[in-house]
Amino acid sequence: MGGDRAPDEIVRGATLYRASGGAAELVLVGREELLRPRIAGASGVEVVDAREVVEMGEHPGAALRRRSETSIGVATQLVKDGRAEGVVSAGNTGATMAAALLILGRVRGIDRPALCGMLPTTKGTPACLLDAGATMDADAGNLLQYARMASRFMEKVHGIGRPSVGLLNVGEEPEKGERMQLEAHALLLAAKDVNFYGNVEGRDILRGTTDIVVTDGFTGNTVAKAMEGVLDVVTEGIRADIFGGLLGKLAALLALPGIKTFRTRMDYEPYVSAPLLGVNGVSVVTHGRARARMMKLAIDVTERSIATGLIGAIGEAATAA
Amino acid sequence: MGGDRAPDEIVRGATLYRASGGAAELVLVGREELLRPRIAGASGVEVVDAREVVEMGEHPGAALRRRSETSIGVATQLVKDGRAEGVVSAGNTGATMAAALLILGRVRGIDRPALCGMLPTTKGTPACLLDAGATMDADAGNLLQYARMASRFMEKVHGIGRPSVGLLNVGEEPEKGERMQLEAHALLLAAKDVNFYGNVEGRDILRGTTDIVVTDGFTGNTVAKAMEGVLDVVTEGIRADIFGGLLGKLAALLALPGIKTFRTRMDYEPYVSAPLLGVNGVSVVTHGRARARMMKLAIDVTERSIATGLIGAIGEAATAA
Repeated sequence: MGGDRAPDEIVRGATLYRASGGAAELVLVGREELLRPRIAGASGVEVVDAREVVEMGEHPGAALRRRSETSIGVATQLVKDGRAEGVVSAGNTGATMAAALLILGRVRGIDRPALCGMLPTTKGTPACLLDAGATMDADAGNLLQYARMASRFMEKVHGIGRPSVGLLNVGEEPEKGERMQLEAHALLLAAKDVNFYGNVEGRDILRGTTDIVVTDGFTGNTVAKAMEGVLDVVTEGIRADIFGGLLGKLAALLALPGIKTFRTRMDYEPYVSAPLLGVNGVSVVTHGRARARMMKLAIDVTERSIATGLIGAIGEAATAA
Repeated sequence: MGGDRAPDEIVRGATLYRASGGAAELVLVGREELLRPRIAGASGVEVVDAREVVEMGEHPGAALRRRSETSIGVATQLVKDGRAEGVVSAGNTGATMAAALLILGRVRGIDRPALCGMLPTTKGTPACLLDAGATMDADAGNLLQYARMASRFMEKVHGIGRPSVGLLNVGEEPEKGERMQLEAHALLLAAKDVNFYGNVEGRDILRGTTDIVVTDGFTGNTVAKAMEGVLDVVTEGIRADIFGGLLGKLAALLALPGIKTFRTRMDYEPYVSAPLLGVNGVSVVTHGRARARMMKLAIDVTERSIATGLIGAIGEAATAA
């Protein structure tokens, strides 16, 4: 029921996942009378009724108080009760995180959860920027835990061996930043289970200088939104200015193969599933703008997180350290 | 002597400024034997010799120790001695800031300096993001001072009446953010001399939601570099993918007027002069990539800052509050 295009595109994403051979069985949680007609007897898709919906702008706290009624609350409870193995939502990110934290709890040894923002890089590999906004008052110890969790996630779910970790900072030199960055730098350098590259800057994120970029949730959220803002403005500019007029439309026809290449390069849909790491269960948030394809890809990430035993691996990394 | 294209493009920027009617008389500071042949008798341009140069990657502290020999040290000292009224550099930002802070000192009533990053917005007006990286450990009181200083700067130098101020945060709601943002929100709301809009998010910056966006220097620097990184990657993509091949080149010919419109819209050169606010003298940093035109525009900003009495206005705002 969550996201700007629910329930149509969300349900379509679910049936697309199944139709393209997805192994996981799906449970759609929400208003039964809206969902059931839309699945039209697709195999491996069932419906669990939930009467209420957390709206996109709603305060997570208010949403939590009526969690036994809301689709995100009911869906998360299914995971807690062992009736589902993971939850994925295109809805209110704050409510999804709050439900996961309250209902599923934290992995033992992890103090704070982190939202893992996935981005395409010019190297062609995905990169993970975390924390993209789950925790507002992170300290250096939290950042070390983020690095450990994201390393397991990139290994297991994205198949990247020994993923490299960069610390987001205002310069490459080890002595850069505030006290928190200096402490985090020392902790990351000393951690044997983290492939620490050193400091990276904002411009390194899309270059893929490292597979993982760790930062506090305030900086991560602000940076991610600022980057998205630039991309939106530039895309609008290309459409309106370059390919807008009559000559522009002709040019667009000629440049069509190139435009397709460009779109594929900038396509963040395969990556935009943001897993919430550190909660004791698989919980994945995707973009509120998600259409069927993006939803299908988010279900893929959710399924791979389950199938590869991500939560167990994070638990081992947290307690072994 | 500073910047990737010094001294050629820097000197060309100076003579361009004079040739296009700029009123200020210019003093070029650096190796006399390199500079003098390049000004070729341009009127209103003199040379003061300085033997050393702070390299772009050099540590500002090391640079400061030999400040009586370096071009940025000597140039800043000219302002202190009243032989110049402002200093502008495309060189090492850290060294320029350190020289300004140490040699010129702070404006009375201002605790920390802030670097004012200028950006174009889709509204067509410039916006100011500060602190773009001058101070790493800012508190809420500093952010209020930044808002006051930037308000005077946008009024005086960019002619914007009652410039609006946004607080960079992870959401629009007043209760968002860490303790520092909550405190800053309360201080900005109570300040009668600041036209406070409320919280803004990363995606608001280029939209021009507010004329000024205040944040701490760590976040501001990281966000600015991340935004620049996206712009670089997208620009490369447009060039290589869309207009790269033979068909693409033909398309580019057709789309030429549109490409020009797009370039003008995305052109940050008129804005990229970052004044360092809070030091007791006009000090402006421009991009290390600066060519003649960008340098000329940076001199314009420097001259307007002097002519409009910016430093005095900041001093009044700081002590009246």
